[in-house]
Amino acid sequence: MYSLSNMAFARTMTMRAVVCPSAPIPPSKLVYNVSHPTPAPKQGHVLIRVKAFGLNRSELFTRQGHSPGITFPRVLGIECVGLVEDAGGGSWNKGDVVAAIMGGMGRQFDGGYAEYTLVPKSAVSQPVRLPEGMSWADFAAVPETFLTAWGTLAQSLNLQPTDTLLIRGGTTSVGLACSTLARSSLFNCQKVISTTRSPSKINAVEAAGATDVIVDRTGESIADQVKALTGGGGATKCVELVGGTTLVDSCKSLTPTGVVSMIGCVSGEWTCKEFDPMMTLAPSKHLTMFGSATIDVANAPIQWIVDAASRGELKLNLDKVFKMEEAGAAHEYMESNAAAGKVVCVVD
Amino acid sequence: MYSLSNMAFARTMTMRAVVCPSAPIPPSKLVYNVSHPTPAPKQGHVLIRVKAFGLNRSELFTRQGHSPGITFPRVLGIECVGLVEDAGGGSWNKGDVVAAIMGGMGRQFDGGYAEYTLVPKSAVSQPVRLPEGMSWADFAAVPETFLTAWGTLAQSLNLQPTDTLLIRGGTTSVGLACSTLARSSLFNCQKVISTTRSPSKINAVEAAGATDVIVDRTGESIADQVKALTGGGGATKCVELVGGTTLVDSCKSLTPTGVVSMIGCVSGEWTCKEFDPMMTLAPSKHLTMFGSATIDVANAPIQWIVDAASRGELKLNLDKVFKMEEAGAAHEYMESNAAAGKVVCVVD
Repeated sequence: MYSLSNMAFARTMTMRAVVCPSAPIPPSKLVYNVSHPTPAPKQGHVLIRVKAFGLNRSELFTRQGHSPGITFPRVLGIECVGLVEDAGGGSWNKGDVVAAIMGGMGRQFDGGYAEYTLVPKSAVSQPVRLPEGMSWADFAAVPETFLTAWGTLAQSLNLQPTDTLLIRGGTTSVGLACSTLARSSLFNCQKVISTTRSPSKINAVEAAGATDVIVDRTGESIADQVKALTGGGGATKCVELVGGTTLVDSCKSLTPTGVVSMIGCVSGEWTCKEFDPMMTLAPSKHLTMFGSATIDVANAPIQWIVDAASRGELKLNLDKVFKMEEAGAAHEYMESNAAAGKVVCVVD
Repeated sequence: MYSLSNMAFARTMTMRAVVCPSAPIPPSKLVYNVSHPTPAPKQGHVLIRVKAFGLNRSELFTRQGHSPGITFPRVLGIECVGLVEDAGGGSWNKGDVVAAIMGGMGRQFDGGYAEYTLVPKSAVSQPVRLPEGMSWADFAAVPETFLTAWGTLAQSLNLQPTDTLLIRGGTTSVGLACSTLARSSLFNCQKVISTTRSPSKINAVEAAGATDVIVDRTGESIADQVKALTGGGGATKCVELVGGTTLVDSCKSLTPTGVVSMIGCVSGEWTCKEFDPMMTLAPSKHLTMFGSATIDVANAPIQWIVDAASRGELKLNLDKVFKMEEAGAAHEYMESNAAAGKVVCVVD
């Protein structure tokens, strides 16, 4: 039985945390609280001393009041990286470097925008050896973004070297991560076609590893361009990050047995109007989805990812680093769509 | 090079055929023509002496004017069974018993509602040995219906004995064929849940092999009933024959990694309004479709199907037999939705 020997630690301590007091509120109304109660260690849960955390649209949605069922006040943050403070009876040692994502973080219970967070052990990674020269900010760009990309390519799409991968919405942080991961030796995919709405971002998409870039103009089909780039055949696999507005056209860009996995919605349009499965998926295409809630964190290749980033094989696409106490400004920056890559906060 | 030695046969001959002169027209306006020109033999095409043909909704749609791109007059009929008259240079012998489906029959060129039809060899089956006691009418119930069911279960859903199969729209001829095939030794599926809108058809669905029957009431979800029948898990595979009105609910009836193949639309509603792939398919369900246009006719298990039907392992579900010259009445009967099984016409 797990001993709660260090409960005293938690009971008597307070910590710094960024609290969302209610929703909807603007970024400036996030509260930086220096005497928030530190969560108490608990069996089956890992208490993590947070060193940095990535921002996610999911947290913007929660603050904007678009996440039903969340009670306030709430410490936001669906992911973090840091050090194990208390393993809750699990097999970690105090001081182990870990990443944590999802499992209810920042939604059902207080999340990563804090000095400490307490998460179910199923949401915590195996211990990671941080490569030399890799900062906590770099590492914070990995968990949610790269594990979503990995889960989509490995679990949802079963990406093979012979596949042609189409990434619709290629300049999102997950889109860039899909590109660099697909082209890495983990998947060794030879042809990655990525889209961007902005010609000025072509270089960034190519730098992330895309072999071909298509400029996606609102309301126009890219299917003919994808066919032209693939000898008429089309892509065999597709990651759909734009959403309901482009999904049917993405299906048109596939081979007859192609698979599209919808994982995001930067267009803000989750639904397809008048979706006709028989026409859209003929003759035998598959439509599926992937969400980070189903990532097998314990078996995710986080160590491989940080090592590959360290040796330059992967591009982490860190855009900007804020301090935890600047979380409001970080939200504002992300909401302005100025970022081209991951926005991260560090905890001193 | 294929010799057109018996071109003379065709040039000088006429045949009986049922012609759709224009569209839309009511069933009574189909023309029974006793001096229609017999198609001429052609390399790469098989001239079949038609003995019987099954009716399909596709032909009703064509007559009703719902099939764009079809020119009239046109001999309808997307399937037939009969005897090879001329193999067009292919490996059949004159007199071989064959089935033919799709490939443009009754749409791009004249089809099976006739004494003779000329079809591309890719649309023609291997020679079949008709089991003792099996009539042409029985055999005519097989091609389109059973090969669509087989293709859906084998190619589209990869049905395994451990799967729980949900058939939504279980009293259609394809739904009944899916049920009897899934439960046969070809798939050996242990649990087949089939739906019907009509309590009076429960017996028919059970007779076709369904292990469980759910009465499907318009606008009501069956997901809870499917979950209850599967220990809370849901079905692993689903054949969707009702269409856009029930598709989302069918997805709800699946396990987290379930697959639904949409193959028909008896509701008349092909599209889903406001389809949300992320919600409908979470956490990692697949949606696909199947159509008989992609059936590999040469490798389809037609011989196995007629043999299994002959020994009583499969139920062919032949509902009513008309003569070719009664094709108008047969259309009228099918259009009235009175049939519970396959409607067939024989050619004397």
